[in-house]
Amino acid sequence: MKILLVGSAGHVGGVARAELERRGHEVIGVTRSTDPGVDTSDPDSISRLLQAVGTVDAIVVAVGAAAFKPVTELTREDYTAALTSKTMGQIEFVTQGLDHLSDGGSITFVTGVLSREPVPTAAAAAMANGAVESFVISAAPELPRGIRINAVSPNVLANSPHYHDAFAGMTPVSDEEVANAFVRSIEGNVTGRILTV
Amino acid sequence: MKILLVGSAGHVGGVARAELERRGHEVIGVTRSTDPGVDTSDPDSISRLLQAVGTVDAIVVAVGAAAFKPVTELTREDYTAALTSKTMGQIEFVTQGLDHLSDGGSITFVTGVLSREPVPTAAAAAMANGAVESFVISAAPELPRGIRINAVSPNVLANSPHYHDAFAGMTPVSDEEVANAFVRSIEGNVTGRILTV
Repeated sequence: MKILLVGSAGHVGGVARAELERRGHEVIGVTRSTDPGVDTSDPDSISRLLQAVGTVDAIVVAVGAAAFKPVTELTREDYTAALTSKTMGQIEFVTQGLDHLSDGGSITFVTGVLSREPVPTAAAAAMANGAVESFVISAAPELPRGIRINAVSPNVLANSPHYHDAFAGMTPVSDEEVANAFVRSIEGNVTGRILTV
Repeated sequence: MKILLVGSAGHVGGVARAELERRGHEVIGVTRSTDPGVDTSDPDSISRLLQAVGTVDAIVVAVGAAAFKPVTELTREDYTAALTSKTMGQIEFVTQGLDHLSDGGSITFVTGVLSREPVPTAAAAAMANGAVESFVISAAPELPRGIRINAVSPNVLANSPHYHDAFAGMTPVSDEEVANAFVRSIEGNVTGRILTV
């Protein structure tokens, strides 16, 4: 398959890319600084990217930032920025991306355990992730031409140890487990699923 | 208790108000057209409302609109409007509301079954509801002075029959069940919970 992977520079994006390439797929990895590149907070930038890439069999979006602060310090601007970056930065690839997907193609978003378990200072990120997950559940039955959509939602990553203290008592997940969730979303037949890892 | 109920004109708000008053609480019901009133999409309007009301023991926010369209027709503007109205219209009552709540007070948001079950044309509303629910889970442990936060998340309402066709095969819930969830959130000891009805 030809796969557009937005956010290929992050750890999760890199894990997805390595496994998808190992399985013989053609992966077009995109970041802010690649050519073509993308600023996922800007719908015009996403439009230009999709025009440059043409038609693909799968779109993976592993992007989105949020401020991490205690909820008593988070501002409206923090929440709005998280929604623009993480929520709309992914959903825009449905709004614009369907026309660039082949029949039976797939869209895979990335969320995380924050949407369902409290983690200190993560309320804005949780909010943005929860939005994406409920969107995926609701959107899936309405997608045309057999196109599927899922979210890969990992727990804290074993290979990102600097985050482990914030996820006290939660079991880190291996790169292999995360990679498998992407494979299932792209090569499998599931849709509307939150693929928790 | 003294309870600020934002969105008292809607069916869910009205159900909450009737039961809370029956139980002896003082309910300040607020809509766009009451005095004081509020436009929950405008943080300055929320600020003026909270100044006018002073300190309360509970805040209930039963507001938020979203466009209902097939996901292939929803636009970025539709999603943004839903996030501003339903998501930020509720979360702003944490950002600004904590200073207006007594020790041990509570905040109760309203979401719905859309966040966890697909319903036709509901992707924007689902997204906005899912954001609120994940926020509640994440924010609860960080609230100061024993303040609690929950979301009441009803299925389709038995007494709103014009929506029943869209929720085919889902079991409508009675006003009494919905009212009980508000009582549990306000008078009970739970926090960080999605009180599904």
